[in-house]
Amino acid sequence: MRRRKPVFDRTTLAALGEDGLLRLLTSRWRPGPTVRTGVGDDCAVLAGRGTDHSLLFKVDSVVEGVHFPPDTPFRLVGRKALARGLSDIAAMGGRPLDALIALALPATAAASAVRDLYRGIERLARQSGVDLVGGELSRSRQLVLTIALLGETAGYPPLLRSGAHPGEGLYVTGSLGGSLSSGRHLRFRPRLSEGRWLAEGRWATSLMDISDGLAADLPRLARASRVDFSVDESRLPRHRGCSVKEALCDGEDYELLFTVPPDREAALRREWPFSTRLSRIGLCLRPSAAARTLPDSHGFDHFRLS
Amino acid sequence: MRRRKPVFDRTTLAALGEDGLLRLLTSRWRPGPTVRTGVGDDCAVLAGRGTDHSLLFKVDSVVEGVHFPPDTPFRLVGRKALARGLSDIAAMGGRPLDALIALALPATAAASAVRDLYRGIERLARQSGVDLVGGELSRSRQLVLTIALLGETAGYPPLLRSGAHPGEGLYVTGSLGGSLSSGRHLRFRPRLSEGRWLAEGRWATSLMDISDGLAADLPRLARASRVDFSVDESRLPRHRGCSVKEALCDGEDYELLFTVPPDREAALRREWPFSTRLSRIGLCLRPSAAARTLPDSHGFDHFRLS
Repeated sequence: MRRRKPVFDRTTLAALGEDGLLRLLTSRWRPGPTVRTGVGDDCAVLAGRGTDHSLLFKVDSVVEGVHFPPDTPFRLVGRKALARGLSDIAAMGGRPLDALIALALPATAAASAVRDLYRGIERLARQSGVDLVGGELSRSRQLVLTIALLGETAGYPPLLRSGAHPGEGLYVTGSLGGSLSSGRHLRFRPRLSEGRWLAEGRWATSLMDISDGLAADLPRLARASRVDFSVDESRLPRHRGCSVKEALCDGEDYELLFTVPPDREAALRREWPFSTRLSRIGLCLRPSAAARTLPDSHGFDHFRLS
Repeated sequence: MRRRKPVFDRTTLAALGEDGLLRLLTSRWRPGPTVRTGVGDDCAVLAGRGTDHSLLFKVDSVVEGVHFPPDTPFRLVGRKALARGLSDIAAMGGRPLDALIALALPATAAASAVRDLYRGIERLARQSGVDLVGGELSRSRQLVLTIALLGETAGYPPLLRSGAHPGEGLYVTGSLGGSLSSGRHLRFRPRLSEGRWLAEGRWATSLMDISDGLAADLPRLARASRVDFSVDESRLPRHRGCSVKEALCDGEDYELLFTVPPDREAALRREWPFSTRLSRIGLCLRPSAAARTLPDSHGFDHFRLS
């Protein structure tokens, strides 16, 4: 048998995976003067309305049959699409501002389905202080709902994935695992208040949200920060009935993952003002330490066929 | 036979049409303090980086089999998706700044297809001064490419659809008709320079781009401005071989449609610095004049089954 070489032209998305392909595609991009952080974080970071002000910019899609089962109530489809984007704003420590809706769906769909989908978006937008500023409709065979979001950090810098240092504690909010099987992926609350508190108070050095599972997302943070990490599996905050593997790999948790300098950890735990669970799950290490205890890519990848 | 009542719950998108549905859906939205113009124009207009500075925000999708035939080269698919959004920035008189790419496509697609699609976007982005700041990939059965765009007007206000007055001349750039059959819809040049010149020099009072055909788009401008209009069909700038009907209804022209006060018209024609054709096609009238010479909805509608 001939070994198949990873030639770009013969490789399918399934073989390359989402991260690998995006790295290839965007490696040539050279961001301009208004771009503070481009590709590779939860949101793009742009120059904002003042010198200590950043604009956050994000686009994200949910696809019928991939991000939600076909029988999901339309209200929850709309809700989830916005909630995912808000989780990315939360993952920078930002405040969401404005959203645009691009919806592709079959012409045979009932107008009431679109209304329900919009109501799901509207309700969460109201609760989160987001202004809806426009909508587009296109015809398609499969429902694809895309939301573009603007947010900001005003008076403090956004928290990136790349700010962690060896020796810092690894923390997560909430509990992990079982999001898809329990339906939590349709109803989760984006951690906007928590993210903003962590950024405004300079508690965290790096921050991201867990969307593809800790096993996929933590290595992304570590790679961006050029650190290694060690996770104590017994400390993983698991949802009731979830195994360690499920907590690591199920994905769709939309909890926050962040790092805290050792001299701030005691104060963080003392002053954490939320009822949201806070767990120290491990430690950042020097990259040479080779102590990584999680395999690199066990979380959800849109294009890997497992 | 019972007459079917237009009950929301029983109405399909095909019956209601894109404009009608979006009007229904967004009529309850109340824009917040940072929103200058929300729903209903080519872009949303938000407070910008200074007092005489507006931020333009847009999202737009192209769908395989709807906006391009399945055998279209991927480079041109990417190009068209960005060009459509740029045309909307041009339609406000703005300068494009940053773009995000959300691509949904089958996992069996070749990685080289995605690379080609990205190259088409990248090339036009470079030519237009747009920074690409992020990309997302999802799995779907049908290719849906969505681009979110930020732009600005700095030192002058954006041109809205709602600024036309009775007595003003109606103008279009370029020529109309035959865009789909000729392939021009894949290769058109967004009228960014023209739009910006019109806005910076305060030449136009209202501006939009022609994407669904003059017969669909002109009534939108008239409705937004509360004017009526008269069009001299013999003055319609038609592409070679196109009938008046084709020039009115084919759509996908991506030319600019704008209005000019009578005392500025002579100077506009004299000082127009572009090689792009400039045509005076008619006149804005008082709404009571009942002199509208174009039927209301002959252009392309995503959900009308013609």
